Amino acid sequence: MSESDGSVKEWLSKNRSKGIRLLQRLVQEPSTRGNEAGAQAVIIEKCREMGLELDIWEIGKDELPAHPLFCSDRKDFSGNPNVVGVWKGTGGGRSIILNGHIDVVPEGSRDDWKYDPYSGQIKDGRLYGRGATDMKGGTVSLLLALEYLIAAGKELKGDVIFQSVIEEESGGAGTLAAVIRGYKADGAIIPEPTNMKLFPKQQGSMWFRITVKGRAAHGGTRYEGISAIEKAIAVIASLQELEKTRNERVADPLYKGIPIPIPINIGKITSGEWPSSVPDTAVIEGRIGVAPEEDMKMAEKELETVLNSLSEKDGWFIENPCKVEWFGGRWQPGNLDIGHPLMNVLSASFEKVAGEKPKIEASPWGTDGGILSGAGGTPVIVFGPGTTEAAHDADESISLDDMFNAAEIIAECILEWCS
Amino acid sequence: MSESDGSVKEWLSKNRSKGIRLLQRLVQEPSTRGNEAGAQAVIIEKCREMGLELDIWEIGKDELPAHPLFCSDRKDFSGNPNVVGVWKGTGGGRSIILNGHIDVVPEGSRDDWKYDPYSGQIKDGRLYGRGATDMKGGTVSLLLALEYLIAAGKELKGDVIFQSVIEEESGGAGTLAAVIRGYKADGAIIPEPTNMKLFPKQQGSMWFRITVKGRAAHGGTRYEGISAIEKAIAVIASLQELEKTRNERVADPLYKGIPIPIPINIGKITSGEWPSSVPDTAVIEGRIGVAPEEDMKMAEKELETVLNSLSEKDGWFIENPCKVEWFGGRWQPGNLDIGHPLMNVLSASFEKVAGEKPKIEASPWGTDGGILSGAGGTPVIVFGPGTTEAAHDADESISLDDMFNAAEIIAECILEWCS
Repeated sequence: MSESDGSVKEWLSKNRSKGIRLLQRLVQEPSTRGNEAGAQAVIIEKCREMGLELDIWEIGKDELPAHPLFCSDRKDFSGNPNVVGVWKGTGGGRSIILNGHIDVVPEGSRDDWKYDPYSGQIKDGRLYGRGATDMKGGTVSLLLALEYLIAAGKELKGDVIFQSVIEEESGGAGTLAAVIRGYKADGAIIPEPTNMKLFPKQQGSMWFRITVKGRAAHGGTRYEGISAIEKAIAVIASLQELEKTRNERVADPLYKGIPIPIPINIGKITSGEWPSSVPDTAVIEGRIGVAPEEDMKMAEKELETVLNSLSEKDGWFIENPCKVEWFGGRWQPGNLDIGHPLMNVLSASFEKVAGEKPKIEASPWGTDGGILSGAGGTPVIVFGPGTTEAAHDADESISLDDMFNAAEIIAECILEWCS
Repeated sequence: MSESDGSVKEWLSKNRSKGIRLLQRLVQEPSTRGNEAGAQAVIIEKCREMGLELDIWEIGKDELPAHPLFCSDRKDFSGNPNVVGVWKGTGGGRSIILNGHIDVVPEGSRDDWKYDPYSGQIKDGRLYGRGATDMKGGTVSLLLALEYLIAAGKELKGDVIFQSVIEEESGGAGTLAAVIRGYKADGAIIPEPTNMKLFPKQQGSMWFRITVKGRAAHGGTRYEGISAIEKAIAVIASLQELEKTRNERVADPLYKGIPIPIPINIGKITSGEWPSSVPDTAVIEGRIGVAPEEDMKMAEKELETVLNSLSEKDGWFIENPCKVEWFGGRWQPGNLDIGHPLMNVLSASFEKVAGEKPKIEASPWGTDGGILSGAGGTPVIVFGPGTTEAAHDADESISLDDMFNAAEIIAECILEWCS
């Protein structure tokens, strides 16, 4: 048994209200895209307090835009920096990256929320607000683990590199910028909401925009036009068919029990301008999941082929093919061998704290793990408190107990990995 | 043969360039909703020149908003008056209303136009521009017919009531205001673009907005949400089914040869905000055609019943019923017996001028005729130059020959009807 036994739990228990207050402060900063500065300021303050070596920089001023994995439609990153805090080891040990993203998706309709989405309201052991689960709760787990280790006077051989990045929700430019800046390690933990499961593999994903053509006419003689909405429905049906085919191919036992391992999600449709007119254009936006071992380009090609083959069933598409754009978000899949040493150390830490073996699965969504491993060569496990069901939805919330349990497990893991 | 024989044609031929110039001046005034004043000024000038008794008033200051057929989301009618010009008869004859609307739909994307949409450019016997066919060309036919009769010194027994109204494209508040002001007659002609056919019956129509609920989720676990887009597709399918049922009931021989006598048009759909999220709301806007003999309220009820019955096939709709709003445009159907005396007189005038019997059909769209007949009790025929295909689209244009032929037929008809 290590000398920390018991004391992590004890320290966390003593510092519980401080930890909750930190999460509350982070949730109260609405760090949607382009507005990350306020939440990053809270992170910076915390890192300073712990005495970490800080690196705060505006991304995009180096070779980032030219990188093959760069994918962003954001024109201006200024004023909303990436933050890295390094706790240098004494040397000779394994290093670790602790990566969390600070950006959150928009809150949607405020009417759908029980509490103000940026209130950080606590009810029955859960803290509510946009970003609570995805993933400011996870970030607080990382910071608590680190704070404990420093407060307890632990000496580690390997470096601990804490990262609070922007842009995860829109393609990972923040983490890619950190990789380009030179941050690599012998292992990494990303505490996205896995509901305390270990995800050595992650589904990748990318966004698509499909423009479907119709022909305008007066609605009273709609038979003289071609409805872009009707054609878009045919496009959606072909994507549903493609989703079925692609998922039938997924044989990885880690995906056992997941209804649709690599979903195709139709997230958005807009068509038409006037109730009495036949719409001449429809635009569909969505995301296609990419299997851990799959190549992004091959998945693109597969979707494009399906759209091209629409013309076999419907001649309209011969003269009016769909236009496909791969825009915005793009998350590389991640694929760590389940026998990797970091899996063993994190699993043992989990068992020590939770008294049972962790559940090991493949993530149903992409994370920055694909970039850390794909571009940076850093082995990544996604493991964190919070649940997917609570992410991106109204009434997003996190179990505070899980947040502290994750902190305890991660502290044990760092101690073992970096010593 | 009446004494006017030959002389209408001759007068129109002599005054051809003046007539064209009048249409050009009207098209050059972009009289979209809220901007009708400029074109009405041209009309007023012409009515004055002919010596008509003018009535120019801002609508909406009387009982208009409280009228059961009133349907408008326009807050301010000031500065854009209705115009009526009356040529009093000597008494004892049948009166006639000549009704044209001055408002035009927006021009859409200017890039889609060969010529500037407000140029009034002439090419190969056609005059181009927004409103040329719908329905400033028809209005010029009315004014030319009147001008000829006055210039030729004809004495009529019945009154001729020329109306240039606003708001036809948005629900008919202009014509309704004229009815409320007391303008009724023994018959009416509305020269909407019928391509020189006689439409004693007109399809009515009204707009609907359907809000469909889903449940948000992350796109990577889309099976945890309910896609509002998928539910909207089910709603659209049920509306397509309803369209089929409703059209199978239309037995009127006037609709023979029309593929869908009373179409349901899905004009607009918007759903979702983020490609990686399952959308929780979809909004569909469209118009439902109403058969000439049908009651608007019954048609509303029928659509609502179909939406309510969605819950029989899909339990989601039990807890999450669609919300239906009847908003914006609302055009009453029109239903004149084809044996009505005005049909006989207009048909005979047509035959005299064109040398053949007119084609008699039912219109595929609503006009202000439904209000003139429904609220005012005035029997209406829709008959005019211009074609539906050219209306509401880029490169709207009208055949000038048709415009003068319609003027000749209408002049003959007025002479016979009012003498």
